[in-house]
Amino acid sequence: MSASAAAALTRRNTPGLAPNNGHARARFDRRLDQILAHATAVFCDKGYDAASMRDLSRATGMSLAGLYYYFESKEKLLYLIQKHTFETILASLRQGLEGVTDPEQRVGLFVRNHLEYFIANQKAMKVLSHEDEVLKNSYGAEVRAIKRAYYRVCLGLVEDLMRARGVNYHPSTPKAGAPGPREFSGRIAVLSLFGMMNWIYTWYNPRADADAGALARQMSDIFLNGLLVRAAHRKRVHRRQSMTR
Amino acid sequence: MSASAAAALTRRNTPGLAPNNGHARARFDRRLDQILAHATAVFCDKGYDAASMRDLSRATGMSLAGLYYYFESKEKLLYLIQKHTFETILASLRQGLEGVTDPEQRVGLFVRNHLEYFIANQKAMKVLSHEDEVLKNSYGAEVRAIKRAYYRVCLGLVEDLMRARGVNYHPSTPKAGAPGPREFSGRIAVLSLFGMMNWIYTWYNPRADADAGALARQMSDIFLNGLLVRAAHRKRVHRRQSMTR
Repeated sequence: MSASAAAALTRRNTPGLAPNNGHARARFDRRLDQILAHATAVFCDKGYDAASMRDLSRATGMSLAGLYYYFESKEKLLYLIQKHTFETILASLRQGLEGVTDPEQRVGLFVRNHLEYFIANQKAMKVLSHEDEVLKNSYGAEVRAIKRAYYRVCLGLVEDLMRARGVNYHPSTPKAGAPGPREFSGRIAVLSLFGMMNWIYTWYNPRADADAGALARQMSDIFLNGLLVRAAHRKRVHRRQSMTR
Repeated sequence: MSASAAAALTRRNTPGLAPNNGHARARFDRRLDQILAHATAVFCDKGYDAASMRDLSRATGMSLAGLYYYFESKEKLLYLIQKHTFETILASLRQGLEGVTDPEQRVGLFVRNHLEYFIANQKAMKVLSHEDEVLKNSYGAEVRAIKRAYYRVCLGLVEDLMRARGVNYHPSTPKAGAPGPREFSGRIAVLSLFGMMNWIYTWYNPRADADAGALARQMSDIFLNGLLVRAAHRKRVHRRQSMTR
């Protein structure tokens, strides 16, 4: 690691001394991105438990002492990888959603944004999936809160769509309890969608499979048609039952 | 481990001496199931890399020497867990499909069978997902072949359904190449379905979430409606384009 990048890291760790000009900040962010990408590759290839600070030092090109000084622990690196991933995805999602008001299109954009990021960062997806329960205490709590926020953004978009289509769905508030047998659960729908998307880390082959755009189209189609047809069907059944009561 | 169960294990390891009466065979199978279930729990809680033969000995109640004698290695135990899982799922699937001819119902049965097994065996699902790439050589090759066969059963059911509905889909044979932009890919559809189902190991909470039956209904609905509506739509577009040519 170059002396200036290391100095930049120190400055960020000491809030009052963060790089105060755009150029230094951009260089700092690039270098931090690189370090996290190298650490992600190590955790992906060796597994978090088996990876040592020595492996991380070798891969990132930082001295072992430097790595401990700036990042403190393996745990902190895993925390930073997860935080960085979700912050980046959320930032590009917000940008993508700006000015788009059609609820169906907004869910489609969520799918595309998620798949684009993780197809470009397949190792991050594997690390996030496999090391989901490693972080404890405040790091763990913070990462869980970020993930929960991301999940709720998706749930909000799906519920907006169901409201717009007049679908009778089960509200996902803690007070609402479990959905009835004929109610549509936004929670199961959203977690099914995440499953579809996240599972690609086990099978996606960039040389043989469709690109992120085509994949997002097919998955959005399955999910949106499945959701809306199903919901419309349930609504018809429900209406028919109300009429015959 | 009791002397008779150990003896039963020896007999199975020596083909000519396998238990030759139903009672002994059933007892042997039950004991093997138990050992694999305990080993699954150890791999799930500690991770495969961190788990030692000593941990496995403690959890299964077998002596360390006995464990080495009957199971040879940690690798062989992981292999047996995977083989046993897919053999059990495939056997109950075959039984469930017997006499059922409606293609949509057959896909629904696949979903229900898969979810029922993994909701009852959540630790197995986590181990299978996380330790997917651990096995090398012949163990690895055999497990990959079993998984591939299971995937192909699902693909076959989905393609039967598309054929029955007259959907114009992209055949998933090696010669067929990549699907065109307007073609429906059975591969992406089936792997999306596996994603939906398998991801539950990260979120399913038996105390708060719907049971396997209700979960299977909602996931089948999303998948089947998504598949058939989407495919019907593509077909309409295709037909319209053919007419205007």
